[in-house]
Amino acid sequence: MTSSTPLSELSPDQLAERLTTLRADYADLQSKGLKLDLTRGKPGADQLDLSEAMLGLPTSHQDRSGTDVRNYGGLEGLAEIREIFADLLGVDPAQVIAGGNSSLTMMYQVVSWLLSHGGPDSPRPWSQEETVKFICPVPGYDRHFTMLAELGIEMVTVPMHHDGPDVPAVRALVADDPSVKGMWLVPTYANPTGAVTSAEVAAALMAMPTAAPDFRILWDNAYAVHHLTDVETKSADALDLASASGHPNRPIVFASTSKITFAGAGVAALAVSPENKEWFLKRLSFASIGPDKINQLRHVEFFGDADGVRAHMRKHRDLIAPKFAAVQAALSERLDGLGVATWSQPIGGYFVDLNVLDGTAARVVQLAKEAGIALTPAGSAFPHGNDPDDRNIRLAPTFPALAEVETAMAGVAACVELAALEQLSS
Amino acid sequence: MTSSTPLSELSPDQLAERLTTLRADYADLQSKGLKLDLTRGKPGADQLDLSEAMLGLPTSHQDRSGTDVRNYGGLEGLAEIREIFADLLGVDPAQVIAGGNSSLTMMYQVVSWLLSHGGPDSPRPWSQEETVKFICPVPGYDRHFTMLAELGIEMVTVPMHHDGPDVPAVRALVADDPSVKGMWLVPTYANPTGAVTSAEVAAALMAMPTAAPDFRILWDNAYAVHHLTDVETKSADALDLASASGHPNRPIVFASTSKITFAGAGVAALAVSPENKEWFLKRLSFASIGPDKINQLRHVEFFGDADGVRAHMRKHRDLIAPKFAAVQAALSERLDGLGVATWSQPIGGYFVDLNVLDGTAARVVQLAKEAGIALTPAGSAFPHGNDPDDRNIRLAPTFPALAEVETAMAGVAACVELAALEQLSS
Repeated sequence: MTSSTPLSELSPDQLAERLTTLRADYADLQSKGLKLDLTRGKPGADQLDLSEAMLGLPTSHQDRSGTDVRNYGGLEGLAEIREIFADLLGVDPAQVIAGGNSSLTMMYQVVSWLLSHGGPDSPRPWSQEETVKFICPVPGYDRHFTMLAELGIEMVTVPMHHDGPDVPAVRALVADDPSVKGMWLVPTYANPTGAVTSAEVAAALMAMPTAAPDFRILWDNAYAVHHLTDVETKSADALDLASASGHPNRPIVFASTSKITFAGAGVAALAVSPENKEWFLKRLSFASIGPDKINQLRHVEFFGDADGVRAHMRKHRDLIAPKFAAVQAALSERLDGLGVATWSQPIGGYFVDLNVLDGTAARVVQLAKEAGIALTPAGSAFPHGNDPDDRNIRLAPTFPALAEVETAMAGVAACVELAALEQLSS
Repeated sequence: MTSSTPLSELSPDQLAERLTTLRADYADLQSKGLKLDLTRGKPGADQLDLSEAMLGLPTSHQDRSGTDVRNYGGLEGLAEIREIFADLLGVDPAQVIAGGNSSLTMMYQVVSWLLSHGGPDSPRPWSQEETVKFICPVPGYDRHFTMLAELGIEMVTVPMHHDGPDVPAVRALVADDPSVKGMWLVPTYANPTGAVTSAEVAAALMAMPTAAPDFRILWDNAYAVHHLTDVETKSADALDLASASGHPNRPIVFASTSKITFAGAGVAALAVSPENKEWFLKRLSFASIGPDKINQLRHVEFFGDADGVRAHMRKHRDLIAPKFAAVQAALSERLDGLGVATWSQPIGGYFVDLNVLDGTAARVVQLAKEAGIALTPAGSAFPHGNDPDDRNIRLAPTFPALAEVETAMAGVAACVELAALEQLSS
């Protein structure tokens, strides 16, 4: 099936012949009646089984301070779970607030409270500014972008490189425009590219001058410990770097156990400067009496400590690394040398980022869909779903079983080649 | 200790003599070195023990539709738990959204989304109005009021009667002023008065013309099933009444299991019109991927159905009714006939509402504090903590043990009489 000649170098006759072959392949694919889904970064059932023992926990209902975790209160979360997050994130436990089941909810709270009240260093609530803009490295996480759109925040994109966002582009945007109030960043094993923001890039982002005195970097470290190899990459130390360069309030670090224990029933956390912490807890006190401390204690009993989390993540790795390998194998087998696609080879996180021939991503997704393979809509990794090159597709291989990933990805690779042939022939 | 003469009828000499006696009583009280707390409506440890078996649940990780509750998704909550809430609240399961651990959080979401986006029937987001006002029946729940203050909403008070808020006062406020956008109401066993809003009052509130086309009644039915006697009062049917009178979007009903299972780890819910439901879920979709479905299933397995909840609430009643009786006994024993205090005799809920001699509530709270008995700050049941008559004190007897309630309430009653004597003597 493999050709070693770039498709763009084929003669019209060769293209026509190859297109005929691919259409036959595609007809075969359709005839299989597949129903496979590579859309969302969801853990597989086998991954969830790793935490099954949690359903019988906690065995105690007191934290180590003697507080009855079944009752109200404790807005910042249990000290024990905050220590585990602090260790994993390389921050001080005093900087951590442990919340409910969703870091997305904590992100939404931060952005909406910046809008309604402003931060501790804001001249006024952001909602009173004529325009508020966020920098969005692309491709990025669709829910980050839809949240901003919902809240009326404009988005400006910068490229995401293998070592993080394009620093000169970011610098240029923040230098003179005080309406640029923030940026998103998934620093480790980025969604979807797998990029790891280097310490150098992180230092530059934390130190750069910004026209807005209350510029925020929403540092969504969702995949901090989600390694796919035995290279256990350490995240850049956002809070220390920011503090050292005189901008302690700039980063807001988010994390959760959603893809560590149970995706709907984990514990989320954020880590911030003392001033941001006071600000967040003050706002939160009007909306909550406290998080689900029983679930926090459940996690503490299950893991013991941060090393317990790390050991647990190696079990996840053993389950999902073969699926990522299957993605690589399927793409390589059909597409190597054809010059119509490139893709990431992530060493962590939940995604493979596939770039197809410009102008064919939507067609690939359509072809796959009509063959029973659901992919994330083309463009979804860009603000307003608009990929200007129509080339980016996010692949999420963790949820289906390995054999399904193999089948689905062989199909996707065929769709990529078919869409490219269609375009080159037209 | 009891006197049958109203204190106001005592001669100066009698007053002085009685004051001397009370000061001695108070000195005795102080010498006991008490450390008792009647401040918050928290379940006692014995109440929390009633749900201890939940810590071993769920035994399954699938809901009845076969969905794996450990994974992401399901924004409106499990059908099973929504059915239980629907039965308890007398609404249709399709009207219910089951969320996380806090109905306060859901209330905050509703108010902040009305501000940022407006409701389905709003001419514009509430934040774009010059002024937004809420009607607050008083005395009421302090967290309702602090939330509004945090969100920049003005508060206008109306009296809370034994059958609900003062309807003519409410009617007058809403009739011509479109900036009056909403009102709070705890319809059943109100916090703190224990009042039950009658079907007639509820019907009037749902039917009344309002200048604001998007007027909302935040119907916080926190104590819907929290009966203290075998009279199991049925709440007025807010959604049906509103729908029947052509204002289906007016009420937003809130409830939770916070004081049914675990106060920090229960399940919250709201019940609304179809339009409000679509609106809420749309907004929510930008802030959450779904609630903790494991905890919802844990509740479903524990209760089975709504009758399981009702049976469970009778066990709570058996534990806390004696504490409420102790409050009545202590107040009656010292204060009956003195003409310096009145108090509620609730048949449900979590509070006793104590009204002392005008101008003495803050003094009573101070005296109690200096004797080691913590009471909710005087005025906390009013917007901005301002009780214009300085007479209202909320008593919360559920958390301390029965013997502590007896000791604390004897002390409180003495403080009430002492403060009255001080004032009458001055």
